[in-house]
Amino acid sequence: MGDDENRNVTITEIAREAGVSVPTVSRVVNGRGDVAAATRERVEELLRRHGYRRPLRARPVLRAGLLDLVFDDLDSPWAVEIIRGVEDVAHAAGVGTVVSAVHRRTTSARQWLGNLRARTSDGVVLVTSSLAPTLARELLESAVPTVVVDPAGVPVEGAPSIGATNWAGGLSATQHLVGLGHRRVAHVSGPAGLLCSRARLDGHRAGLESAGLVLDPALVREGDFYQESGLREGTALLALADPPTAVFAASDQIALGVYEAVRRAGLRVPDDISVVGFDDLSLAAWASPPLTTVRQPLEEMGALAARTVLAAAAGEEVRNPRVELATTLVVRDSTAPPRS
Amino acid sequence: MGDDENRNVTITEIAREAGVSVPTVSRVVNGRGDVAAATRERVEELLRRHGYRRPLRARPVLRAGLLDLVFDDLDSPWAVEIIRGVEDVAHAAGVGTVVSAVHRRTTSARQWLGNLRARTSDGVVLVTSSLAPTLARELLESAVPTVVVDPAGVPVEGAPSIGATNWAGGLSATQHLVGLGHRRVAHVSGPAGLLCSRARLDGHRAGLESAGLVLDPALVREGDFYQESGLREGTALLALADPPTAVFAASDQIALGVYEAVRRAGLRVPDDISVVGFDDLSLAAWASPPLTTVRQPLEEMGALAARTVLAAAAGEEVRNPRVELATTLVVRDSTAPPRS
Repeated sequence: MGDDENRNVTITEIAREAGVSVPTVSRVVNGRGDVAAATRERVEELLRRHGYRRPLRARPVLRAGLLDLVFDDLDSPWAVEIIRGVEDVAHAAGVGTVVSAVHRRTTSARQWLGNLRARTSDGVVLVTSSLAPTLARELLESAVPTVVVDPAGVPVEGAPSIGATNWAGGLSATQHLVGLGHRRVAHVSGPAGLLCSRARLDGHRAGLESAGLVLDPALVREGDFYQESGLREGTALLALADPPTAVFAASDQIALGVYEAVRRAGLRVPDDISVVGFDDLSLAAWASPPLTTVRQPLEEMGALAARTVLAAAAGEEVRNPRVELATTLVVRDSTAPPRS
Repeated sequence: MGDDENRNVTITEIAREAGVSVPTVSRVVNGRGDVAAATRERVEELLRRHGYRRPLRARPVLRAGLLDLVFDDLDSPWAVEIIRGVEDVAHAAGVGTVVSAVHRRTTSARQWLGNLRARTSDGVVLVTSSLAPTLARELLESAVPTVVVDPAGVPVEGAPSIGATNWAGGLSATQHLVGLGHRRVAHVSGPAGLLCSRARLDGHRAGLESAGLVLDPALVREGDFYQESGLREGTALLALADPPTAVFAASDQIALGVYEAVRRAGLRVPDDISVVGFDDLSLAAWASPPLTTVRQPLEEMGALAARTVLAAAAGEEVRNPRVELATTLVVRDSTAPPRS
């Protein structure tokens, strides 16, 4: 913000202070590419310093024919599900989807912002990460409509976001297991620092309590969403004196790691232990046995983000700053009643 | 091509015949967007009819800041591996990667071509499919440099392409199995109509023959690269009076289907039967047991395609119209000597 953050500065004042014409400031505000880099930087610095806020509906109509979709990395199997949802909506609107990975590096994110400014974009769908809040702030300060897709639940102040109902998903996973008769249900969580991990764990606890059970802290282990953490924590759980008869894993990849821990112990899913995942990536259906999991509608989340950003680019107001799409339990062959 | 294919028509002649200016024809030839649609179509029709060939080095330098990457569908887990390779090279060059799916529909491909013309592109990486030959021909006729990434081995006349050594990959898979002592090695192939399926099968046969074995036609079954076909054909193979002790699957997804057939039969991989896949998608390492497979360097194939297309866009000549990158055998836990 700046020295006069409560006053709504006008682009005429910015133009005077920058020593450029009003249309030039307007072009910068509207994210157009046809302004010299040095001029654009000077104007943006002034807009930022004075806390300039773009009037609603002043956004330009679609002109670049491009929508940007930005990930940290393209190493996750859920990236392609989001790409599919965004591309489908963009394609139908005659808009191209520019996919970028900023590789968890600030320098790379800066370079990406620079490229974006040079070629213009009608809007940005940002898939959350540690960089997202910084990047989103810069995008919001420029005139490019931005929507955050938020499978990890990291909040980005000021940007509309699309998430999933993580708490309800955790609840449904554990209710399914206690409904089958399981009493010792373990949970391998996502990283403790992420809100979505916390929401899934809280849903798990609520599922246990709905069946009159109490969470045993020895049966909650922290993972990081990747397969290796499922193998490590699954192995530790199976080594307990009183091991669990079921595991709710906070991601499909963790669940596959638990599968491998079970196999290495000479046991079988679901005969010896039941496993539930979270996400429903395509690999969940291909696992052996096919994985019971909580479906996170990643493709629909991408599609809704794309529709929202294209509507904003066309000057429509975003009505719901935060939308969570429902998760659903998909029952396959990895869950069964416990051995009696 | 046309009625006078051996004569090299000039753009001046095309301009005269189309009743437009020479710069207009030039703009069409160079794939620029600032030509009315009807005019562009008329000029393109004449360029096509006269078999116009763009002089080498007449291509424009990078100006769109965009590279297009086109798939049939984004439903394959290998799509993201190719996206990663292309995006990495493009990002480093300050170029955005526009990812599109044409959904195996000609109408959709036409719409995509229309969008491409409207916004311009520095080059196109086309991932092969049934549509690829048609699409590639149209792209080659326009001025947009095009390279085909060709994991399936479909040849596209006139376009440089990047593939993998499918025959050598099949050979290495089967040599690994016969080296472990297997004598009855089955193969679940890809679709019989694809060259890559044929090359993998021929490599498999050569691997058998290198160990003095003869291909048993009863042990070769046709799949379609998807998991379901592996489950179906794996089940059929296990039901044989003299079942195989090992299976070479033409894709990782087929291999996962064979895993499920083995599990349903109450058997275990690799104790009862060894399985080798093809591709080395990330899911191969996450499978339980982790899958021995032939690594197809999809990310590197994407990266090389992007470098080739950007070089062509900068006016460099493409030296090697067809490049095949080496496959490598990745040995994990799904293969072991046969039970004696």
